[in-house]
Amino acid sequence: MKKKVDERGVRVPGFRFGAASCGIKKSGLADLALAMADRPATVGAAFTRNSFRAAPVDVASERVRRGRLQAIVVNSGNANACTGRRGLADARRSCAIAARSLGIDEKLVAPASTGIIGVPLPMGAVSAGVDVAATSLDADGLGRFAHAIMTSDAYPKIAHTKLSLGRRRVTVAAVAKGAGMICPDMATLLVFFFTDAVLGVREARSLARRICDRSLNALSVDGDTSTNDSLFLLASGDAGNSAPAPASSALRSLEKAVDDLGWQIARLVAADGEGSTKLVTIEVSGAPSVEAARRVARTVGNSSLVKTAFFGSDPNWGRIACAVGYSGVPVEPERVSIRIGDTFVFRSGEGVGAGREKARIAMKRPEFAVRIDLGRGAAQARYVTGDLSTDYVRFNSAYST
Amino acid sequence: MKKKVDERGVRVPGFRFGAASCGIKKSGLADLALAMADRPATVGAAFTRNSFRAAPVDVASERVRRGRLQAIVVNSGNANACTGRRGLADARRSCAIAARSLGIDEKLVAPASTGIIGVPLPMGAVSAGVDVAATSLDADGLGRFAHAIMTSDAYPKIAHTKLSLGRRRVTVAAVAKGAGMICPDMATLLVFFFTDAVLGVREARSLARRICDRSLNALSVDGDTSTNDSLFLLASGDAGNSAPAPASSALRSLEKAVDDLGWQIARLVAADGEGSTKLVTIEVSGAPSVEAARRVARTVGNSSLVKTAFFGSDPNWGRIACAVGYSGVPVEPERVSIRIGDTFVFRSGEGVGAGREKARIAMKRPEFAVRIDLGRGAAQARYVTGDLSTDYVRFNSAYST
Repeated sequence: MKKKVDERGVRVPGFRFGAASCGIKKSGLADLALAMADRPATVGAAFTRNSFRAAPVDVASERVRRGRLQAIVVNSGNANACTGRRGLADARRSCAIAARSLGIDEKLVAPASTGIIGVPLPMGAVSAGVDVAATSLDADGLGRFAHAIMTSDAYPKIAHTKLSLGRRRVTVAAVAKGAGMICPDMATLLVFFFTDAVLGVREARSLARRICDRSLNALSVDGDTSTNDSLFLLASGDAGNSAPAPASSALRSLEKAVDDLGWQIARLVAADGEGSTKLVTIEVSGAPSVEAARRVARTVGNSSLVKTAFFGSDPNWGRIACAVGYSGVPVEPERVSIRIGDTFVFRSGEGVGAGREKARIAMKRPEFAVRIDLGRGAAQARYVTGDLSTDYVRFNSAYST
Repeated sequence: MKKKVDERGVRVPGFRFGAASCGIKKSGLADLALAMADRPATVGAAFTRNSFRAAPVDVASERVRRGRLQAIVVNSGNANACTGRRGLADARRSCAIAARSLGIDEKLVAPASTGIIGVPLPMGAVSAGVDVAATSLDADGLGRFAHAIMTSDAYPKIAHTKLSLGRRRVTVAAVAKGAGMICPDMATLLVFFFTDAVLGVREARSLARRICDRSLNALSVDGDTSTNDSLFLLASGDAGNSAPAPASSALRSLEKAVDDLGWQIARLVAADGEGSTKLVTIEVSGAPSVEAARRVARTVGNSSLVKTAFFGSDPNWGRIACAVGYSGVPVEPERVSIRIGDTFVFRSGEGVGAGREKARIAMKRPEFAVRIDLGRGAAQARYVTGDLSTDYVRFNSAYST
């Protein structure tokens, strides 16, 4: 499912963005991106939990530890994953090259890579690309940044918003790439949040973690978690607001804004899922805990049988009920209800035959929701996914390493 | 992938089998099967852990509690799942009808159903079918039994062996249906073991549990666990051996025979997986525990990206490594090796480029193994699966409820 998105991006005071095409991608498309803060920014981050995490993830997770970061150097077309010691050295060298080109301390630079696994990073190309990207740094460059981090993405993914913190207006922008939790060998999901808010390190870290839990971990194209997944949240402080105190209403406002952007990004990624023709939201309510609600939503949203039924516009509640049943969350079938859109298809332990045709019509739309109530509590969660199409299989089997 | 199997079945002293076509399936194919022991047999069983378990599973799990069973009444074409109270009454009534027709106590009869979910069992048809099947009971009827329990299966699934227990020759036969952990709405996996061995109830139960752990739970077509999965092990005692004592070598021999049959059945089911064109065994070694080995094998064997690579004969070790990495079992990439067939494609944290072409050739065969060594212990496990093809998606999306 392919969506038109706003590619113009937005300005986030305190940040400039640059991009270059340096030949990592054979296509000649842009493949190197720089994000640069005027001064060291507060940073929070979250990284893949895959044991085979890529070299740039190892390096980035070291670099964000001090809570300050001034630049991120991103390349697409090569994930620098499963590349051994050489990969680690290359990731560090990318940062050193960027630091020299930008005239900043290399400890303030973090790397991110996305693309093919198991191939060494072509460092000559990276070096040349960094220099070109550095000269192109511009406050209006977010759109070009978004393009340069794409791999199999059909479109760049940007979302932004403004909000008031005290008497100051604050901007938050999110940019991401991803069209599969892994694209074939073109791993992965990279997400960047930029804001001009003044923000403490502890708050930045907790926001980064929460975005993952609430929206980006509530997203699946194919259930595979990549080696390179990285999320960065950078706050330049240019807005001049008072730093939001823990548990303050200002922090809650910022959190809500960041959450909304995370959810928009998750939807953009799911809609761009390989071969997907529909955007489906799984909403689980009536759960004994948020964790249980998430688990049910994730199990349903990852079932191949459920996803092929989405593809076929088949209101096959049996497959949905079955996935709920094996999610590992104990449920009583008599208390579970399942709606497609607003139409009940399963209630009181039995199918609702009358809902079938209405549900089928809802499923033919490019976007619909499956709503599951477990009847066992007040917790809820949502999950965004797509359908499993013949094109997904065709794309992923034809792709050859 | 479609295999020729021996449909003639085998005799298991003490058991007779019958079948009928009673109109539950619109196709007119056989859809009712009876297994009958001359005297009450020792029984061990294992059932689905899906919360939405079907009515016949509820009834069967009650009936096996006393450790004795004389008959099993199986229908295909209708799973009697998600059918509420009526479904429970229908499952009990199927047993009562069979008991009357066979002239035995209805508490000694267990039901099993497989087929469409959410539709009440047509009890008139079941009643007529039981009467016909009862008149057809025959010691040579295992082949007909195997046919009558099929749904979307391309072929019946029978495996059998003989072994010596003390001075007696003992027969063990296994028969199963399944072509997907769920077929579309035609749930599921049903497995029956019949032996003429004398066997204690405790041993029968422990065997039933072990078969599941070692082979049938090490099998996946699409990762979906159905509402109706049931396994029965019935021992008639006609062989007249001394009952194997716990931890005796006789019990180990029997266990090995049963294990082998379980593995044969698992392979037959995987090979009959919907749309699958290849049979793939995932062998994990060097794991810190059997549970860890199983978890890695299961994660790799269920990855859509890995399975589409199997379909495309693509030696894409990056996807395999990635799935190992997100299995939840901590691994050190440098210690992990991956072979396709006997060819290393990943070792010491890096890809082995030289192995690629040989691996690709191995993957074009109808059957191959992926061997993953974690380098962290001595435990191992194996898992059998297939590829994910465009036909899988086509079949499961075109199928309409």
